[in-house]
Amino acid sequence: MNTANKKRIPESTISRLNLYLREVLILNELKIPRISSADLGERTNLSDAQIRRDLNYFGSFGKTGSGYAVPELVKSLRKILGREEFWNIAVVGAGSLGSAFMKYSGFNKENLHLIAAFDNDPAKVGQKINNIPIHDIVQIRPVLQEKKIAICVITVPAQNSQAVVDEAVAAGIKCILNFAPVALTAPDDVIVRNVDLSGELEILTYFLVH
Amino acid sequence: MNTANKKRIPESTISRLNLYLREVLILNELKIPRISSADLGERTNLSDAQIRRDLNYFGSFGKTGSGYAVPELVKSLRKILGREEFWNIAVVGAGSLGSAFMKYSGFNKENLHLIAAFDNDPAKVGQKINNIPIHDIVQIRPVLQEKKIAICVITVPAQNSQAVVDEAVAAGIKCILNFAPVALTAPDDVIVRNVDLSGELEILTYFLVH
Repeated sequence: MNTANKKRIPESTISRLNLYLREVLILNELKIPRISSADLGERTNLSDAQIRRDLNYFGSFGKTGSGYAVPELVKSLRKILGREEFWNIAVVGAGSLGSAFMKYSGFNKENLHLIAAFDNDPAKVGQKINNIPIHDIVQIRPVLQEKKIAICVITVPAQNSQAVVDEAVAAGIKCILNFAPVALTAPDDVIVRNVDLSGELEILTYFLVH
Repeated sequence: MNTANKKRIPESTISRLNLYLREVLILNELKIPRISSADLGERTNLSDAQIRRDLNYFGSFGKTGSGYAVPELVKSLRKILGREEFWNIAVVGAGSLGSAFMKYSGFNKENLHLIAAFDNDPAKVGQKINNIPIHDIVQIRPVLQEKKIAICVITVPAQNSQAVVDEAVAAGIKCILNFAPVALTAPDDVIVRNVDLSGELEILTYFLVH
């Protein structure tokens, strides 16, 4: 495994590694010692060739014929995916979506800690949702730094989202999960992942007419 | 444009067509009559080659050198994406995420009507959120049919999601937007799009350690 290789790993591979980790965690709980790429493929709806290709980016995990050792695969995938460290998360925008995320177990588990929110509505600032304090958006830069936030989840309206990204980047944030349906600009060393919820529904209607 | 071609169009292309439509709707509002693929590329963070390739799947939209006629592109993209018809949507699972979607404007706009929800919690059944009634999950099949629901949004816990898909498919649903972080099985003529919210965050931590 060398750094030159790491840089070229596609996001889709990382996404699948996360699926593999979920499955091998279940197998590990069940004390199943080994799994073949074919069986792992069946459990994740992927081909065994795809699985071998994805894992090969990170070195050699298994021997041909005998499959992967589950505990070893859990350990390696956890390390690769940054699960051995703790990460603080903030939600920017405490509207219906932001508030849901503050209550959502998927954003607050294991090594992910959603510990702060921001909003510009005076009625929300100072309140807590699921014990997470809502700060005034004007305080975003110092609060992100003071609370050592690693990831910002952006759920503000589209027209405010670039300003939020700029503030987050100025505070040193390197990872952003954006729910605003607009193309955002950030420096090259900042990762912005976009989840376009209404876009997902809009795409489905294509399939309804075709 | 022939049906053989249509079948091979990748979902990523449909996803981008939706972005193009958003942009040309804005241009149309501003009474801008034409746009080049280069300008549309700049507005969507995509290359002009990508845009031409995506649009070429659906025939000829513009003349080289003079760009695309905006009103015509709006009309064609709306038609391709199924925007000229109305679609009813139901949310299955009225927990924190499902409730947020019931209040979320992105799931209830133009030709998308979120008109029903389902839950198995007796305290929720019979209630309304944002004027949308929450039905008993045991009634899912008749209610989906009676209300002519086209798309089901699944926000139930992972362990219940396959049972919900099976019921929705039995009711004749052909499009599912799934937020449960599991691989679901559905017949070939049913489109299941998966949005893995906690997976999105988990992937980001990869970039924090690399």
